[in-house]
Amino acid sequence: MVDRPIDTRERDVIARIERARARPRAFRDPLITTAHGAGGKATRHLVESLLVPTLAGGTLAALDDCGRVRIGEVALAMTTDSFVVRPLRFPGGSIGELAVNGTVNDLAMAGAAPLAMTLSLVLEEGLDSEVLRAEIAAVAAAARAAGVEIVSGDTKVVGRGQADGMYLCTTGIGLIDPRAALDPGGARAGDRILVSGSIAEHGIAVMLARGEFELGAAVESDTCSLWPAVAALLDACPQGLRTLRDPTRGGVASVLNELAAASQTAMVAHEDLIPVARAVGGACELLGIDPMYVACEGRLVAIVAPDAAAAALAALRGVPGCEGSCEIGVVEAEPRAMALVETSFGSRRVMDMLVGDPLPRIC
Amino acid sequence: MVDRPIDTRERDVIARIERARARPRAFRDPLITTAHGAGGKATRHLVESLLVPTLAGGTLAALDDCGRVRIGEVALAMTTDSFVVRPLRFPGGSIGELAVNGTVNDLAMAGAAPLAMTLSLVLEEGLDSEVLRAEIAAVAAAARAAGVEIVSGDTKVVGRGQADGMYLCTTGIGLIDPRAALDPGGARAGDRILVSGSIAEHGIAVMLARGEFELGAAVESDTCSLWPAVAALLDACPQGLRTLRDPTRGGVASVLNELAAASQTAMVAHEDLIPVARAVGGACELLGIDPMYVACEGRLVAIVAPDAAAAALAALRGVPGCEGSCEIGVVEAEPRAMALVETSFGSRRVMDMLVGDPLPRIC
Repeated sequence: MVDRPIDTRERDVIARIERARARPRAFRDPLITTAHGAGGKATRHLVESLLVPTLAGGTLAALDDCGRVRIGEVALAMTTDSFVVRPLRFPGGSIGELAVNGTVNDLAMAGAAPLAMTLSLVLEEGLDSEVLRAEIAAVAAAARAAGVEIVSGDTKVVGRGQADGMYLCTTGIGLIDPRAALDPGGARAGDRILVSGSIAEHGIAVMLARGEFELGAAVESDTCSLWPAVAALLDACPQGLRTLRDPTRGGVASVLNELAAASQTAMVAHEDLIPVARAVGGACELLGIDPMYVACEGRLVAIVAPDAAAAALAALRGVPGCEGSCEIGVVEAEPRAMALVETSFGSRRVMDMLVGDPLPRIC
Repeated sequence: MVDRPIDTRERDVIARIERARARPRAFRDPLITTAHGAGGKATRHLVESLLVPTLAGGTLAALDDCGRVRIGEVALAMTTDSFVVRPLRFPGGSIGELAVNGTVNDLAMAGAAPLAMTLSLVLEEGLDSEVLRAEIAAVAAAARAAGVEIVSGDTKVVGRGQADGMYLCTTGIGLIDPRAALDPGGARAGDRILVSGSIAEHGIAVMLARGEFELGAAVESDTCSLWPAVAALLDACPQGLRTLRDPTRGGVASVLNELAAASQTAMVAHEDLIPVARAVGGACELLGIDPMYVACEGRLVAIVAPDAAAAALAALRGVPGCEGSCEIGVVEAEPRAMALVETSFGSRRVMDMLVGDPLPRIC
């Protein structure tokens, strides 16, 4: 793949995006909206202009999904996530399973083997105890599958109408693999963009499970632990592995935007190479959503050096659940800090981060 | 203080409690109620009969406020808490300050110096951004005061009416002080029971802040970091320090019950020695609540060996905020696994754990 020219229209789009990004970033939104939790521009604005400057510490400022804590010779990753998915159960998973895998995967993306996890419950008064029992069992099963121990917990109950059944918060610590030299800004022109399987399945499975759409498509969430995939990559090509991300809220498009911004490169995905299951593609078309913006919960995006791509792909494909891994694009030098998609006709369009929240409460 | 006889009526009460405790503990409550989050019997039943058996791991089974994680030579404590206090601000504190201190204090009670913390936000759509800004500032200020860094975070937004403004979840890790040989079951007959100041202030401050009662009493929450107090105790009498607890939900009475059960001793508090501020005592009387069951958020209960009590008290009183530390009772051999209060007339009554939730959502 070589750099293709970008047409005049796209140049205008890029110029507009660059002007918007250059504007002062004081947080002036008067009210919190669902967009602030969607993982796109509004979330980033809240995090960058209010949360990080106020809480400012060295590792938080990196805006990574994980914090890093060094204790003598021990390098730990630490990450937290709240889960508010609706409905609590959906094809392929449930909030309990998601809460474990979501946190395990944030650790894995930092190159950290999951070590221990906490579980905090906010329960709504009147919740059926069997619903709680099922989710605690799902947490336990997912923790066993991921090889992580739940070491502490907390339970709060709020009144009727003050939560939607239950919200979970999981926090994990993991041991950073000494071979992992991952850097969100580590992508260089020529690097390859890999994904570990077909995308957008989690978000679509949850949307369909709400029954708000008259779609009978059978789509299952991809939720699973990604540590085995990361361990395989670290075994196969530790040197060539630049960075890892799990494309959750905001999907692959948002991840490519973040990585492009961090490395000041262009992430160019090829539309024809992006793996989307037929049922997912159909549902996305009917819902009017680009699958590149839809959350996965068991997929990773890896940026790898050109000479490591074949070994990385082979390693990924050997991991159960990652057989569908493929290369979807390349990193280019220009336009800086942009994610683009190239169509089969050779034209390119910018995939900016979203402002709104097309799929609320999918994790 | 010596063992006093227990009258026949109290013997009946003790026998009834012992029979109830001996019953099989399968979790059969059909619905979750606020009592399951109140820190008393219902919470303990949920934790012991559903959560721990399902999630069972070595350290979780200890039912401590902290998990313990060993990495080579490093011994870590790890703890999590969700905060759902209403209102978000109250005299003496706010949800953001509480979220930091609550987690720091759980670490401190495990003898662990706070090291790093995560912050997860569940925000309600429509929340005033200034309210969020104030709480993030409160988190930052409390973290600075406690000497702990916020290393990672998460933000979710739920729809209007699906949360009550905001819920926070903080998780902390801390380095266990090698001098801390704390054991929840470590109390022995003759040990002294200390508290680090006047009790019940946090719970009453929050209740009064709701304005549901026509009480003009000026009561401020005691929320603060307890690590300086623990560090002082470890400096002064590491050998004689049996165990530490912060009496949050369920208050001092619940803590004494837990410690009595863990050590199979009797915890006997002397009514006249229990420090209760006049305004707090008055409010408790009007509300019909025993201050021994009302939450503190900046007090600790320490069980210390008899010969360490004087040094421990002197050390505590030297810590800002703990000047009012005092001895409130002694550990006796019988009746096992019971907490009792002795009145100024010399009679004793059992303080069992509560079943219901007299003060919902105070943390």
